[in-house]
Amino acid sequence: MATHDYDLVVIGSGPSGHRAAISAAKLGKRVAIVERMRELGGVCVATGTIPSKTMREAAIHLSGIHQRAFYGSAYRAKDSITADDLRHRTQMVMAREYEIVRDKLVRNGVEVVLGTARFADSHRVVVELQDETREVTADFFVIAVGTRPYMPPSVEHDGVTILNADSILDIKVMPKTMTCIGGGVIGLEYASIFSALGVQVTVVDLAKNLLGFVDTEIVDALIYQLRQMKVVFRLGEKVESVTVDHSGAKPHAVTHLASGKIVVSDIALYSAGRQANGDTLDAEKAGLEIDKRGKLSVNSVYRTSVDHIYAVGDVIGFPALASTSMEQGRLAALDAFGARDEKHVHDIYPYGIYTIPEISTVGATEELLTQESIPYEIGIARYKEIARGQILGDDTGVVKLIVDQRTRRLLGVHAIGTGATELIHIGQAVIAHNGTIDYLINAVFNYPTLAECYKTAALDASNRLKAISGVQKV
Amino acid sequence: MATHDYDLVVIGSGPSGHRAAISAAKLGKRVAIVERMRELGGVCVATGTIPSKTMREAAIHLSGIHQRAFYGSAYRAKDSITADDLRHRTQMVMAREYEIVRDKLVRNGVEVVLGTARFADSHRVVVELQDETREVTADFFVIAVGTRPYMPPSVEHDGVTILNADSILDIKVMPKTMTCIGGGVIGLEYASIFSALGVQVTVVDLAKNLLGFVDTEIVDALIYQLRQMKVVFRLGEKVESVTVDHSGAKPHAVTHLASGKIVVSDIALYSAGRQANGDTLDAEKAGLEIDKRGKLSVNSVYRTSVDHIYAVGDVIGFPALASTSMEQGRLAALDAFGARDEKHVHDIYPYGIYTIPEISTVGATEELLTQESIPYEIGIARYKEIARGQILGDDTGVVKLIVDQRTRRLLGVHAIGTGATELIHIGQAVIAHNGTIDYLINAVFNYPTLAECYKTAALDASNRLKAISGVQKV
Repeated sequence: MATHDYDLVVIGSGPSGHRAAISAAKLGKRVAIVERMRELGGVCVATGTIPSKTMREAAIHLSGIHQRAFYGSAYRAKDSITADDLRHRTQMVMAREYEIVRDKLVRNGVEVVLGTARFADSHRVVVELQDETREVTADFFVIAVGTRPYMPPSVEHDGVTILNADSILDIKVMPKTMTCIGGGVIGLEYASIFSALGVQVTVVDLAKNLLGFVDTEIVDALIYQLRQMKVVFRLGEKVESVTVDHSGAKPHAVTHLASGKIVVSDIALYSAGRQANGDTLDAEKAGLEIDKRGKLSVNSVYRTSVDHIYAVGDVIGFPALASTSMEQGRLAALDAFGARDEKHVHDIYPYGIYTIPEISTVGATEELLTQESIPYEIGIARYKEIARGQILGDDTGVVKLIVDQRTRRLLGVHAIGTGATELIHIGQAVIAHNGTIDYLINAVFNYPTLAECYKTAALDASNRLKAISGVQKV
Repeated sequence: MATHDYDLVVIGSGPSGHRAAISAAKLGKRVAIVERMRELGGVCVATGTIPSKTMREAAIHLSGIHQRAFYGSAYRAKDSITADDLRHRTQMVMAREYEIVRDKLVRNGVEVVLGTARFADSHRVVVELQDETREVTADFFVIAVGTRPYMPPSVEHDGVTILNADSILDIKVMPKTMTCIGGGVIGLEYASIFSALGVQVTVVDLAKNLLGFVDTEIVDALIYQLRQMKVVFRLGEKVESVTVDHSGAKPHAVTHLASGKIVVSDIALYSAGRQANGDTLDAEKAGLEIDKRGKLSVNSVYRTSVDHIYAVGDVIGFPALASTSMEQGRLAALDAFGARDEKHVHDIYPYGIYTIPEISTVGATEELLTQESIPYEIGIARYKEIARGQILGDDTGVVKLIVDQRTRRLLGVHAIGTGATELIHIGQAVIAHNGTIDYLINAVFNYPTLAECYKTAALDASNRLKAISGVQKV
């Protein structure tokens, strides 16, 4: 059977790719992973999740933003925060993460091939190394090549005044004002990091409603909070161009809106969409079709139109989160080698958005249940009612439960505030085990914790359900 | 039937008392709560959980202890930390908590009586108010009078140099050295707060092993961590006396050990045991028996030897945590009015200990399962392997799962590190729903979160179980 060099070749070593490689290796398969960058880990480690979340953590600490409830709104932990303060920390964490990814792959016997991969045919990939090429063949392929920032010609990206999600990590001087073009996950994360650091931020987006996949009440709360931090929103606005103006003492970014307004700022971050890297693979030689945004289509088990080629992670589009991408990688590898079974089918994926405050959500939204005519009730707890919220100085956090009116089963949890991305997993476990709010009402929670919100919110839902049961009896 | 003034009188407004009062009020009962302090909330708000946890949070922030992985071990967020810095924040939070407790009681129609309660007979309590007395009668009583620091005569408590868990909140000058007599929860919490602030701490305890109810590996990790912060442990040492030495320029605390050693420090905190307040109630007039430590005995539904009198919270002893006390209060009230049902019986209580790093534990320990001959396997995840641990700069945290070897069911979770008291509730939900590690292996966790430790630890346990299944087949 071993007519090919490998059982599996994975192209791209980001979260989805390296998880696919390791999962196959754990099944005893011969696996190689191809990476075009010098370091392993993909965009996630190099320019994406890891550096942005580390910068966020540094911003929270250095700005002292969580301490302002105690020391006043002018409080700063460090008086003058420089771009170096942020970069120092991100580079330490990135270096360590590169090591961790490499170590995991090596420990599991995955062969690492550094170079750029292109298909020669559906079982053969040519890897361009520094000054040679190498051919590798495999029974199965997993394409996990990710995305790159999309920059239209009307945006004058110079990496200094006009930035994208990659180049923003290299800024040398802290701006006083910033325009974020694109109010998606990346745009809002950077808008909140910089506004926490005292930068005046304007967010521009074509959509009137941001983060459409998140519970509306939670998105509204985020926008309210960001406005408290002096962020200005220009929604429903089309951007015509973003140019650098060199006429003053120092260059400025000028964002021209179709409505005639212009927005001037020290820097502009363009993060309105990304281009998938499917267009870099000579994919047509393997019989694959790529759409105009470079994306690949897959079925429910992440298989492309070519049976033995899978695609996972950002290159297949939404939700393009490291967490779900890792799971896609694992499931693709298991499916390829017949190791997937039914219990692997979970559709309760949490989403985490690392704005300040952070957002997380799992399970059904009110909008979805209303569409599907499933009667629900909500239960709300606010951090300000919870001792831990007081102690942390976070009086704006909210946990909202969505509960089935008929069965009291927990259907969804939507949260904003300190630790929301961690807390959500408590609700996720209850939902996955078909649990009801009665579990949350009767459970003992450590005191003082934010997790107590679950009990408070469950009691709130239970009280609302009592009112309903009264009506139904009449 | 209304021969008594109230359906329920609760004595003490700490977590267990106010929860009992509110639970009964929600059932439509006429409820009064008696509190001898000027403010509601009991020791929890006045001198216990709330101020100590707030002081801890301030210490973590002001010391910058969590940032030292990035900025070096000498890093301090604030150069000179004063006792006022700590007090300012605790007093803000306490004031707000007093308000929250009062508001909850008032909103639920509970009558608040400020004064000292003593039993006249088993249905009658005399409350001494400032310059009058008032008699209240009730069908049921819940005693929730808590504890006070126990100070033997050999300890020269002066509230300045020799302190207890109450008086330590009022210190005016930050010490350079400190002796903690008693290495229980309170002693270790303050030892870690002060050592984080740069104080050299010595912990003295009669026991050789501290925190006996916690997983040994986790306690060992805590002691290791505290030693890294320069805490010295003198274990298995009997304290003969603690006296103030006035011979030098400023007073010192001198702790004399039975082994002949003396420990000299700027301040000493005596927290070796507490006296329950059962002895303040004229309890014998109600037919109740109090032990020599002031404690009341209760059965499994928190009923004393007198059928219509319940006792809950610290006055009944272990575990004396706000979280469990609240639940005891609620269950006592439900039991009194016949509203308790079987689903209220949960024995999966988490424990949270707010040392630095914090500890939390839920479910079975290795020690217990070994005693009961239940075969288990463990699964470990370390924060340093997890991206979130890197980003936070916490590379010492550990999550340990205890798994049934035969069924793969999760039996216990033991954790130390940032957020451990929150994280534990994920495992608690899985345990309560009879979940297995397969849930954790297949679940998607937000990335990067500490919650990912569950997946890593579950995979570790699963790998260990594979090894065992090999042996069993032979």
